[in-house]
Amino acid sequence: MSESLLDRRERLLGPRLTTFYEQPVHLVRALGTKVWDADGKEYLDCYNNVPHVGHCHPKVVEAICKQAGTLNTHTRYLHEGIVDYAEALTGSFADPLNSAMFTCTGSEANDIALRMARAVTGATGVIATDHTYHGNTMAVSQLSCTNPPPDRWDSVDFVSAPDSYRPISSEDWAKEVEAAIARLEKRGHQLSALVICPFFANEGFPDLPKGWLDPAIRAVRKAGGIIIADEVQPGFGRLGTHFWGHEKSGFVPDIATMGKPMGNGHPVAGLVTSRKVMEAFRETFRYFNTFGGNPVSMAAALAVWDVIREEGLQENALEVGDYARAGLRDLAEKHPEIGDVRGSGLFFGAELVHDRETKAPATDFTKAVANAVRHKGVLMNFLGVHYNVLKMRPPLVFSKDDADRMLKAVDEALAEVPLG
Amino acid sequence: MSESLLDRRERLLGPRLTTFYEQPVHLVRALGTKVWDADGKEYLDCYNNVPHVGHCHPKVVEAICKQAGTLNTHTRYLHEGIVDYAEALTGSFADPLNSAMFTCTGSEANDIALRMARAVTGATGVIATDHTYHGNTMAVSQLSCTNPPPDRWDSVDFVSAPDSYRPISSEDWAKEVEAAIARLEKRGHQLSALVICPFFANEGFPDLPKGWLDPAIRAVRKAGGIIIADEVQPGFGRLGTHFWGHEKSGFVPDIATMGKPMGNGHPVAGLVTSRKVMEAFRETFRYFNTFGGNPVSMAAALAVWDVIREEGLQENALEVGDYARAGLRDLAEKHPEIGDVRGSGLFFGAELVHDRETKAPATDFTKAVANAVRHKGVLMNFLGVHYNVLKMRPPLVFSKDDADRMLKAVDEALAEVPLG
Repeated sequence: MSESLLDRRERLLGPRLTTFYEQPVHLVRALGTKVWDADGKEYLDCYNNVPHVGHCHPKVVEAICKQAGTLNTHTRYLHEGIVDYAEALTGSFADPLNSAMFTCTGSEANDIALRMARAVTGATGVIATDHTYHGNTMAVSQLSCTNPPPDRWDSVDFVSAPDSYRPISSEDWAKEVEAAIARLEKRGHQLSALVICPFFANEGFPDLPKGWLDPAIRAVRKAGGIIIADEVQPGFGRLGTHFWGHEKSGFVPDIATMGKPMGNGHPVAGLVTSRKVMEAFRETFRYFNTFGGNPVSMAAALAVWDVIREEGLQENALEVGDYARAGLRDLAEKHPEIGDVRGSGLFFGAELVHDRETKAPATDFTKAVANAVRHKGVLMNFLGVHYNVLKMRPPLVFSKDDADRMLKAVDEALAEVPLG
Repeated sequence: MSESLLDRRERLLGPRLTTFYEQPVHLVRALGTKVWDADGKEYLDCYNNVPHVGHCHPKVVEAICKQAGTLNTHTRYLHEGIVDYAEALTGSFADPLNSAMFTCTGSEANDIALRMARAVTGATGVIATDHTYHGNTMAVSQLSCTNPPPDRWDSVDFVSAPDSYRPISSEDWAKEVEAAIARLEKRGHQLSALVICPFFANEGFPDLPKGWLDPAIRAVRKAGGIIIADEVQPGFGRLGTHFWGHEKSGFVPDIATMGKPMGNGHPVAGLVTSRKVMEAFRETFRYFNTFGGNPVSMAAALAVWDVIREEGLQENALEVGDYARAGLRDLAEKHPEIGDVRGSGLFFGAELVHDRETKAPATDFTKAVANAVRHKGVLMNFLGVHYNVLKMRPPLVFSKDDADRMLKAVDEALAEVPLG
């Protein structure tokens, strides 16, 4: 008998590699919001945010092919691509965010953002939430409690993940930030930055009112720190109401980092900041990224940029996201396990509980529902502090028909899976 | 008057960005070993190692296009691409190097390698040479004296860059390594790894005999450390005599990292190590890279892999490299500024001096020669501890005609540029 793909993977790539679902899916093809496995089974993709404008979007594929066949070099030669994209990208930010830098991954972008914060503040302390993830470099993984490093730097401290279902007040959260600043100072680290996903995507995307972060942001700035907004998940129009997550939250960060959806799967990422921060970084650190901002990466990113506008994908995210959430709220009428439905645009989901009064998280149930839905041909995932939030974050070409198909699968799964 | 591309670049991307040459080249098209600027001027590319099998190689472009139009997702789903490439790649390494991991950049690969060293040794000290560069993450940039960080970690120490023109003995170099180990231990850091490019590419690619590193490697292993071989520059057949740099040097590393040429410009990188090291890493650290090992990256890498073999590019590197070096030695007969000609395969160059007796580095002259040659339509660069080594590292499809064109340009430039 031949060795299975899963066994070959374990032999060649090592142990403890994570896969999605109890029975991993072996994908071979994708288009728009659909993916197909090796047996030809079709799945509706409600989860993958990387193919932002749809799997294998022809305009993005064409841009990559054309540029890969024309020229692909590093940025020590001059090329229009990086400058044109930087012009478009920075044009979508409020003043004074007018300077761009490009990398290959969001991790690399956040790794630089930490150094920029250090360069402009002269300080080293960093605060993140206790249920976030900002990337995988040695430095950035220090910000993670979910993927914790074995040696925690004493320059890093944490605050609670904001929650709108079991709410913590805006002022109390600011006090947590102040307490973290004090702990850092006690350990000899003045604050350089608060790093947050403005949508708190991994924390369970709480439904926070605009301005909720203001007291915390004031505390950070008072302490001399800057705000790094990690836009890897909420950015590029996904939230429907706004193009960037920080706009929805109602603040202007000092640095906005971006990644996954930027090239629809092509490894391109980057950040936008002020001239002041960029200059401080360039005066303090030398940095060059061979692949960052290369002509093919920029062609992919520019094609994604154009498609978002040409196809009205931010507007679609708003309309279909509202429709899908309304559908989930309808399901909540008959499924008491749905404790909360929330999100914005095409980043949404439902928190599943044992009891709406106690709000006791139905963690195992949520996992079982995600796996049941997978067998019904619909891909989604679950996260949050209690890992009881069904998370949906589909390509932005997600349609109302797609939403109906998702709702049917969730409806059936909720009926079939025992709450336990 | 419209804003120049250089001015737009400075405005949008910030100050202090490096460009090649006193008059930067604005490239628009490339094929094989040739690139063209915006005025239609053709250049022979003797420098870019990223387009390893030739700029815009049709087989690599086709592989990228085909896979980008079929499926591009992360590795939490199963896919043949990553497993097939890992099988091919690990098959080119000696025992016990049988496990692979993929990232987007060589920097990311080295960042992981440092954590692997830590996981398997339990120690934190790292040694590199004082004129190397292994990448740009916050952690990896600690290994750099040429791009130094403002805050040097006390877990990092340095040894001299090996030199074959002003030789240091193998035993003396090992003593330097032992002294660095002792300094690290004094600062509370047992040795985890010696990180080297086995070809010492940035140091000036000294012509070291096989086994030269053995005493140092013994010292590292005796202290409980491992060897990380950074194959980003010498790997994938460039050296002609061997497929990997460490093979030429005559040792088997514990981890080999690779990057730039792996996907001919597509952002793919990775590392190969033993099952033991991989397991130690996976037990100690959680790691996932969204873009790393995705189907398009693996298709690009596999196409490069196939082309190297199908077109006999390692053999071409050996033959044309020998031819080019012989030509440079001929030039040395009439140009006394050429103090040394060295290299292996298509990684070669010439060290330029004021005087062959004193070997006084002709640093400014070397820079002027590189710039003069650029105006003759030939692209190369210069590096080494004294920045007086003309460095050539062309796509492996470099032909004898290309070598002749390069030799003519160097001959003319050496005659024209005043030694000063």
